[in-house]
Amino acid sequence: MVKLWSSMAKRAMPYIPGEQLNRADTVKLNTNENPYPPSPSVVEAIRGETGDALRLYPSLTADRLRSTIADYYGVKDDEVFVGNGSDEVIAFSFMAFFEPGRTIRIPDITYSFYPVYAKLFNIPYEAVPLNEDFTLPIESFYQSEGGVIFPNPNAPTSLYIDLKYIEHIVEENRGRVVVIDEAYIDFAGASAVGLIRKYNNLLVVQTMSKSRSLAGMRVGFAIGHPSLMEALTRVKDSFNSYPIDRLAMVAAEASFKDQVYFEKTRRAILVTREQAKKRLTELGFDVLPSQTNFLFATHLTADAEELSVRLKNDGILVRHFNSPRIERYLRITVGTNDQMAILYERLQLHLKNIGALSVQKLL
Amino acid sequence: MVKLWSSMAKRAMPYIPGEQLNRADTVKLNTNENPYPPSPSVVEAIRGETGDALRLYPSLTADRLRSTIADYYGVKDDEVFVGNGSDEVIAFSFMAFFEPGRTIRIPDITYSFYPVYAKLFNIPYEAVPLNEDFTLPIESFYQSEGGVIFPNPNAPTSLYIDLKYIEHIVEENRGRVVVIDEAYIDFAGASAVGLIRKYNNLLVVQTMSKSRSLAGMRVGFAIGHPSLMEALTRVKDSFNSYPIDRLAMVAAEASFKDQVYFEKTRRAILVTREQAKKRLTELGFDVLPSQTNFLFATHLTADAEELSVRLKNDGILVRHFNSPRIERYLRITVGTNDQMAILYERLQLHLKNIGALSVQKLL
Repeated sequence: MVKLWSSMAKRAMPYIPGEQLNRADTVKLNTNENPYPPSPSVVEAIRGETGDALRLYPSLTADRLRSTIADYYGVKDDEVFVGNGSDEVIAFSFMAFFEPGRTIRIPDITYSFYPVYAKLFNIPYEAVPLNEDFTLPIESFYQSEGGVIFPNPNAPTSLYIDLKYIEHIVEENRGRVVVIDEAYIDFAGASAVGLIRKYNNLLVVQTMSKSRSLAGMRVGFAIGHPSLMEALTRVKDSFNSYPIDRLAMVAAEASFKDQVYFEKTRRAILVTREQAKKRLTELGFDVLPSQTNFLFATHLTADAEELSVRLKNDGILVRHFNSPRIERYLRITVGTNDQMAILYERLQLHLKNIGALSVQKLL
Repeated sequence: MVKLWSSMAKRAMPYIPGEQLNRADTVKLNTNENPYPPSPSVVEAIRGETGDALRLYPSLTADRLRSTIADYYGVKDDEVFVGNGSDEVIAFSFMAFFEPGRTIRIPDITYSFYPVYAKLFNIPYEAVPLNEDFTLPIESFYQSEGGVIFPNPNAPTSLYIDLKYIEHIVEENRGRVVVIDEAYIDFAGASAVGLIRKYNNLLVVQTMSKSRSLAGMRVGFAIGHPSLMEALTRVKDSFNSYPIDRLAMVAAEASFKDQVYFEKTRRAILVTREQAKKRLTELGFDVLPSQTNFLFATHLTADAEELSVRLKNDGILVRHFNSPRIERYLRITVGTNDQMAILYERLQLHLKNIGALSVQKLL
């Protein structure tokens, strides 16, 4: 029956997201969702739109949402593109800017969806090795043949690089598009959005799934030169005219308008993150300096996969990647303080049981 | 700046959907939306899901929705695929089943998104001329090189063909996939879903945007052999893991479970359609025997484009395609009886003003 598949379907190597457990008591720290609900004004906006309006197609051009995002970032409406989650925006970016036969560059340790897109669309890619300490080797991304894509902060390493390095990479790739995937930027330093007027080859992609608690609503966006937006729109309008439904549209708008709630939940996560770093270090982990809503940590003696399996049996999900160079690491989403307390308690117990807890570390 | 675009972005020829006017008093008969709101149980389901759950990713596999659709059609869960509107499902179908270099066949007068997908994905296509009366020349679709796609009922012609002809086409294309786009099937005769067990090369695509009043929520689906579903899933999971958000998911499930409401609104549209056919005929139109929620009609003397412009000035939108063979036709969505009464009244006035109304037709 595979003979009915296209060569594209055959060569596809689908992305595997973090597991979704449906037990209500699961402590879910494996897919970097926000532990706090979306803003009450988001809920209100959805309720207001739920009724007769649902029979009508949503806006083709998402004008109101694009305008809301443009206002928030101090850019123009025609410098904003919106899509069904940043995954779709990135898929459209591969289609609109990367070319079969022209090799793009990605880090060797990064969001594992990039090679999946590359394979699907027949774009050759070079996986540039991160430095030993997982920092990005900036100059290795200069003068790419077909373009560049990486997240800042990077995932799953949680490391952020300063904008001056982003600027160097963009500068050294004139004539090719550099996509900076800022899924976690709200937990880090400055966004590269401020550079889009200076560089027409810079595309900044963001999501509402992390800092804005809307993973369930599927909204992502890109900011860049109007000509890049036009290319994305051409591809979108050749693929699916209305990828964002009416409720996602009003939810996203309301979220951007409630800055107070956004700041409150964002800060809560940052505080918990720093506490978690301290606590995990006390338990014998080496924790990278995270600028995301997750921690990338390796235990000095205990096996990461074993820990993840033991935690899963407790109903605590964390993410372990069975990949070269990072198989000793766990990626742990920053949850609520209560969720994290359960995590520390269970980790301490398991580490003790497998003899991986040194006594002085407990103090 | 176009030099930063990929060849795909350059060759794209985006689909142009029907205009969306934002005036609240618009009589919107141009995009085949349902004039009735979605079922009250849909509204209730959305309200129940609107809250903390939105911070979590939706189901990757949409198990509950697929199972609901499978139950409704008496097929198995692994014979159902769901996507962000039938447009996305069809896009994935082009990717999963059609091959660059192998010519597919479509009707010359049909849903104008098919050539757009073909162009985007570099799939050559042959536009097979419909017969003089817009019926489908069945045998011209036999033995295609790369596959077949057409709607049944066809759009914008509104004509349905009997399943025996669908079966002949599928039978005569063993080894290639035949996609039957049943966007309007609930207003017509039997669905081809009943044939999927007999033919592993048949893919049936449907949408919730028309008969189920959910154009604003973006849910479409395909039914076919599990191996076809697997190919679609591979492509989907290589493109965007979660195209259907949590609210769209519960809305779709609730819709399928409220059969009474569905039947009531569906029948109301069928009754209005037959009245509209009679009334338009009285006004001098030749109306094709519609099996959809729209009418495809040509006036014996008046110019179609002029009528559409005059109606637009009245706040009434109907669709006119400036395309060969159909430039004298209007595609008119079946609205509520009140909307249709406004349409008849304005049409009568305009026809009178341009001297296109013969007196005896008024009786």
